[in-house]
Amino acid sequence: MGERLAGGNVAIALLANSIATGAALVALILTFGPISGAHFNPVVTLADAWHRGILWRHVPGYLAAQFMGAFAGVGAAHVMFGERLFSVSIHARAGFAQCFSEFVATFGLLSVIWGCARFRSSAVPFAVGAYITGAYWFTASTSFANPAVTLARSFTNTFAGISPIDAPAFVLAQLMGAAAATLLFGWLAPRPTPERALQ
Amino acid sequence: MGERLAGGNVAIALLANSIATGAALVALILTFGPISGAHFNPVVTLADAWHRGILWRHVPGYLAAQFMGAFAGVGAAHVMFGERLFSVSIHARAGFAQCFSEFVATFGLLSVIWGCARFRSSAVPFAVGAYITGAYWFTASTSFANPAVTLARSFTNTFAGISPIDAPAFVLAQLMGAAAATLLFGWLAPRPTPERALQ
Amino acid sequence: MGERLAGGNVAIALLANSIATGAALVALILTFGPISGAHFNPVVTLADAWHRGILWRHVPGYLAAQFMGAFAGVGAAHVMFGERLFSVSIHARAGFAQCFSEFVATFGLLSVIWGCARFRSSAVPFAVGAYITGAYWFTASTSFANPAVTLARSFTNTFAGISPIDAPAFVLAQLMGAAAATLLFGWLAPRPTPERALQ
Amino acid sequence: MGERLAGGNVAIALLANSIATGAALVALILTFGPISGAHFNPVVTLADAWHRGILWRHVPGYLAAQFMGAFAGVGAAHVMFGERLFSVSIHARAGFAQCFSEFVATFGLLSVIWGCARFRSSAVPFAVGAYITGAYWFTASTSFANPAVTLARSFTNTFAGISPIDAPAFVLAQLMGAAAATLLFGWLAPRPTPERALQ
Repeated sequence: MGERLAGGNVAIALLANSIATGAALVALILTFGPISGAHFNPVVTLADAWHRGILWRHVPGYLAAQFMGAFAGVGAAHVMFGERLFSVSIHARAGFAQCFSEFVATFGLLSVIWGCARFRSSAVPFAVGAYITGAYWFTASTSFANPAVTLARSFTNTFAGISPIDAPAFVLAQLMGAAAATLLFGWLAPRPTPERALQ
Repeated sequence: MGERLAGGNVAIALLANSIATGAALVALILTFGPISGAHFNPVVTLADAWHRGILWRHVPGYLAAQFMGAFAGVGAAHVMFGERLFSVSIHARAGFAQCFSEFVATFGLLSVIWGCARFRSSAVPFAVGAYITGAYWFTASTSFANPAVTLARSFTNTFAGISPIDAPAFVLAQLMGAAAATLLFGWLAPRPTPERALQ
Repeated sequence: MGERLAGGNVAIALLANSIATGAALVALILTFGPISGAHFNPVVTLADAWHRGILWRHVPGYLAAQFMGAFAGVGAAHVMFGERLFSVSIHARAGFAQCFSEFVATFGLLSVIWGCARFRSSAVPFAVGAYITGAYWFTASTSFANPAVTLARSFTNTFAGISPIDAPAFVLAQLMGAAAATLLFGWLAPRPTPERALQ
Repeated sequence: MGERLAGGNVAIALLANSIATGAALVALILTFGPISGAHFNPVVTLADAWHRGILWRHVPGYLAAQFMGAFAGVGAAHVMFGERLFSVSIHARAGFAQCFSEFVATFGLLSVIWGCARFRSSAVPFAVGAYITGAYWFTASTSFANPAVTLARSFTNTFAGISPIDAPAFVLAQLMGAAAATLLFGWLAPRPTPERALQ
């Protein structure tokens, strides 16, 4: 929606997007956290399974739901704004700087989740929402930080899209960022009790 | 106020409106939650009565207060900005995309309320405020999500208005969205104790 | 600062001012709440004394500190932005619509304070900050809602000022709004224990 | 990022920066608070050691980490946006008004930290984030309020930079502001138990 209204002024569109995304995340994590853990993000699920927060046999179901949810969201947004259900993106997002941004964004996201889940689990929704609002601006890639969202956004030919050719490098950078943060916090704040993690 | 000042730049007006609305909702729900439940919204009251959060015989009083409050708010805003007390809106908001947006917006609002009220009732004010700030942007209709507000806004001939011809479809979509979310959360998070709901 | 940078775009200036004011209030109320109650506002002190939250003999000291603080703030802002320490405002803010806005703004502020202080005292800082951010936009006067601030701002010849001729009507409207809210919440939520009020 | 996109509209860039900085701080303090205290700021560490919140022999390690972190952040931002790793700033920020702004900003920051840490330690992340978002706007220097950040930003030739010639006066003003707030709160709210401080 930002793109439509701002009429070329990308800064206002981004500001609106960053605040809307952060605010919606706070609401969604508060809503679904007690039910499923409110992962929404494959790298969060993989990192959580790695640290034994959830069982590996639950991971495929989580991943399937995350990818289906991301595609459903893109489709619903297209219907709401009167566009075709899906269309391939031609928005190029490539190069070392963009991928390094995704590494940093996902590293930060997982750091916030591991740091908060360990000691202040009730603050996770607010910390993640605040982090994403901030990360929109301090990275060059507007912080996708989520492989499911990255793939789904390769099927929207809008401001938010990413060309399918560029998506794999983004996903790889996200996986590396998540792994680095998980290793770091395994050392900084070892062994969260599984019951408390991401709750 | 947004409309007046932005001088044509709808994006800034919307950003201001979305932040102001979300922030004011946080304050109002914190203020009135312990007194009346801070519904403000007919679909919240109806959904709550359906799940036995409040008694059906209290519903008419709630609905009357909600419609009176919405009209009083529109009137007070007109007085503050030196306009006529009420005037019929000619702002067309029609079509499937707009109504689908209201369905999605109200579905999301009720999901947030049911999800939070069940397990983290003290977070409801922040979750609802954050949700509304976000929903302004991810829907095509700026998320009315409230039948009382929809009717009252058909009597303001400003940016915020909705033509009386278009209001019934919005209200219908809102009722359907609320019903869908209430059914979903009746299955996802069954039987909240009435005392805890929306408190 | 908003005025300087926005170069005529009043909407962005107001958005920045509303967010900055709300955010700073959250920080200041969290900081000073446990020490003094974090009133900052003569009408809050008067309403609190009326409901026996503080003793009447402490009121003159509070009021003196509030007026001194407001003037010190205006002076410090002028020094920071390289202007004269004080200068009389010529910014006209008059008429029924403006005064009605101040009545509504102060009525709302005191409602939020009384409603939250009674049942959720720890949420007062966030509720007041959120309310002020919102009230900036839903009133025609940008919600001064504070007699000390109103007087001090009659000595700044900037965007934020108010002509000394217009200040008394603003203060009167603020006192009436505060009295109306205090009467209403005396009926809606009777007798807060003094120890808990505004804490 | 703000600078790039806003295309000359400094107000939007500042608004985005202030919200992003405040939001990111909330996330980072929630994340690292339980591990290290989440100082990030040499004047916070010095003030905390002065009031015996941490031992003086831990201070050099904190300061080294803070300066390394600030420089790493500037370097990472340059890499993400495809610029040289470091470049000397030519952004002049001098004069009494600018330094007085830094005094006020750091005085306020330390007041918020000392006030909240004493009585409501769990609110510190939100109070600091809200304060920094607000202080961006009510000071003339955009509130650096951090000697490590000030030095690191003398090596970025962007909007955010500060000429190395002007940095020492900023640092001196920050130290004086921090000392003044620490003295004031030593009198207003004496002797916080070291274990609770900044936690």
